Amino acid sequence: MDTQELYDRGLKLRTEMFGREAVDARMNAFGDFGKPLQHIINAYAYGDVWQRTALPAEMKSLVMVAMMAAAGHANELGVHMRGALKNGCKPEQIQEVLLLLALYCGIPAANEAHRIAADVLREHGVRL
Amino acid sequence: MDTQELYDRGLKLRTEMFGREAVDARMNAFGDFGKPLQHIINAYAYGDVWQRTALPAEMKSLVMVAMMAAAGHANELGVHMRGALKNGCKPEQIQEVLLLLALYCGIPAANEAHRIAADVLREHGVRL
Amino acid sequence: MDTQELYDRGLKLRTEMFGREAVDARMNAFGDFGKPLQHIINAYAYGDVWQRTALPAEMKSLVMVAMMAAAGHANELGVHMRGALKNGCKPEQIQEVLLLLALYCGIPAANEAHRIAADVLREHGVRL
Amino acid sequence: MDTQELYDRGLKLRTEMFGREAVDARMNAFGDFGKPLQHIINAYAYGDVWQRTALPAEMKSLVMVAMMAAAGHANELGVHMRGALKNGCKPEQIQEVLLLLALYCGIPAANEAHRIAADVLREHGVRL
Amino acid sequence: MDTQELYDRGLKLRTEMFGREAVDARMNAFGDFGKPLQHIINAYAYGDVWQRTALPAEMKSLVMVAMMAAAGHANELGVHMRGALKNGCKPEQIQEVLLLLALYCGIPAANEAHRIAADVLREHGVRL
Amino acid sequence: MDTQELYDRGLKLRTEMFGREAVDARMNAFGDFGKPLQHIINAYAYGDVWQRTALPAEMKSLVMVAMMAAAGHANELGVHMRGALKNGCKPEQIQEVLLLLALYCGIPAANEAHRIAADVLREHGVRL
Repeated sequence: MDTQELYDRGLKLRTEMFGREAVDARMNAFGDFGKPLQHIINAYAYGDVWQRTALPAEMKSLVMVAMMAAAGHANELGVHMRGALKNGCKPEQIQEVLLLLALYCGIPAANEAHRIAADVLREHGVRL
Repeated sequence: MDTQELYDRGLKLRTEMFGREAVDARMNAFGDFGKPLQHIINAYAYGDVWQRTALPAEMKSLVMVAMMAAAGHANELGVHMRGALKNGCKPEQIQEVLLLLALYCGIPAANEAHRIAADVLREHGVRL
Repeated sequence: MDTQELYDRGLKLRTEMFGREAVDARMNAFGDFGKPLQHIINAYAYGDVWQRTALPAEMKSLVMVAMMAAAGHANELGVHMRGALKNGCKPEQIQEVLLLLALYCGIPAANEAHRIAADVLREHGVRL
Repeated sequence: MDTQELYDRGLKLRTEMFGREAVDARMNAFGDFGKPLQHIINAYAYGDVWQRTALPAEMKSLVMVAMMAAAGHANELGVHMRGALKNGCKPEQIQEVLLLLALYCGIPAANEAHRIAADVLREHGVRL
Repeated sequence: MDTQELYDRGLKLRTEMFGREAVDARMNAFGDFGKPLQHIINAYAYGDVWQRTALPAEMKSLVMVAMMAAAGHANELGVHMRGALKNGCKPEQIQEVLLLLALYCGIPAANEAHRIAADVLREHGVRL
Repeated sequence: MDTQELYDRGLKLRTEMFGREAVDARMNAFGDFGKPLQHIINAYAYGDVWQRTALPAEMKSLVMVAMMAAAGHANELGVHMRGALKNGCKPEQIQEVLLLLALYCGIPAANEAHRIAADVLREHGVRL
């Protein structure tokens, strides 16, 4: 497959998951300097790996939440919590991931992840 | 609830997931010195957090695989890959988690996780 | 022991260490969504592990400072520096932990931990 | 060699790399509490290891950028990106390090590093 | 560009850097289960990012050594130390990276990296 | 102070803590290639930071155990557990550090640290 096709179908899926506004903001944040990174994200992440079908979308999102929380990537954790809600995950499913995190990566990691989850849920109008 | 009940129901679930032999080996590995840690594992992890029901068992297992791989805990990653197979996950679902890992935590983390997955799958008679 | 007892004695110790206001703020930060995490913190951390008596309180606090600084958990590092001062640790003892950190976890980790320590010490009226 | 000499030659090199103002700000940030850490930085880092000559200055800077980005030390990453520009590195060389980072430490680490790089480059008048 | 072309030119470069035997061993280690990961490595890492030309090959290798050592990826660190020697880096250049590592990521990380470097250098007939 | 003096007093303290045989083995492990790292360890770690006196020796050792366990440095964790026993720490004090680790850095980190502790304690003739 041509890498332009990879890029296009990746950008399409990414836009469906996060909305045009959020994707545009991230695409433009670093100008030309950021273009090769955006190519990696669109073509290789969303155009290739995210196109696989062994896991349903909400499951992929919970896996991403687990991964980003375990690795301590706060910004990306927020991004993929929003993606998880878009992909149909329920707050109590995210909560369950974060409680496994508390036991297996420790309370501070879970505290930080709860803080981000609470922000994202409130932003979506969920009463905590 | 009494903590002894938490412990008992946790040990029961843990034994169902990993088999008596594997659990016994881990329970006894550090003698009396390890007893308080085993209490944490049985009562607080398997007796409390793992008893929650917002996620089906195979989903929890994939979340654990994602978390342990992202945190670089090789031994525990092997343990939870075995748990994932026991909980009904398919090799291609584990593979999909590990490919997300490659993109979001980097190739070396994915290489290491593939090595462990390949060992566990061969041990279960899967032809790679 | 009943888990409610664990929770109550844990919350009592936690309140003694950090003050009611700080504990209330953390207990309520994530609403109902955060309740299971607060249960883990009160019952399992402060109600169980922190009740052990092989180490005096100030020694536990310095261990926590070392652990949080090494793991890069900035918020929790601030919390446990406050706990360390409450438990009787002197600034030069915290400083010595942070200098071991510089050598064994690197200068950037020590820089970040000094920044947090300086904030906490100034907040307690210590002239640096 | 006397440690005072190590310290003096280290501070001299550090000042050449980052400018007097930036070094003064960091030297004074934590008052007396920070003096032993500043001794480690001036005498042992810049007075000893940075004096070695097997690598040219710009290569050392790119190595530092790689190391700080991989370890997730955001502040120090900014410091050494400024040092890299001072030592003659070009934006596209920094970019190439950050793209290797994307593949080998994952997209979120690269995103964070791009954000810091974009800030530093704009601060130096580079149009992105 | 077609992804097959990316893959082919990537595999070519990878084979030049590490030798056919080492690459074959890694390509086959996980059978079909590992094919998508090998695609990521060949097409996206060596076929795209490693093809960039802002940094000479030996500089890229030292950057990789810095990154893998900072992230604690022991196996991959060995791989890229071999690549560094193949790309013309001298032992004292690798040593200088590892001494920066000692100061900025701490003594234990540097100890582990020295152990791997010593193995790789001896394997290449260097007398330490 | 002259750096040779720093080095000499550091090597003396290090030898008291770990024994001549263990220190010699580590001093020689990487030949000349490792000499600058050994200089950092002897002069800057043991000759400077470890000479400070705000914390008693056993407290420093427990801080080191906490730090190395939190950072996942298995080898160095073993080294400093041996140092802790030499400095008068009791097994139940080490155990208490590792239980705090379980709660604050997660069960897998505590499992790994228990495994190393069990090996070191058995090596010292402690029945677990």
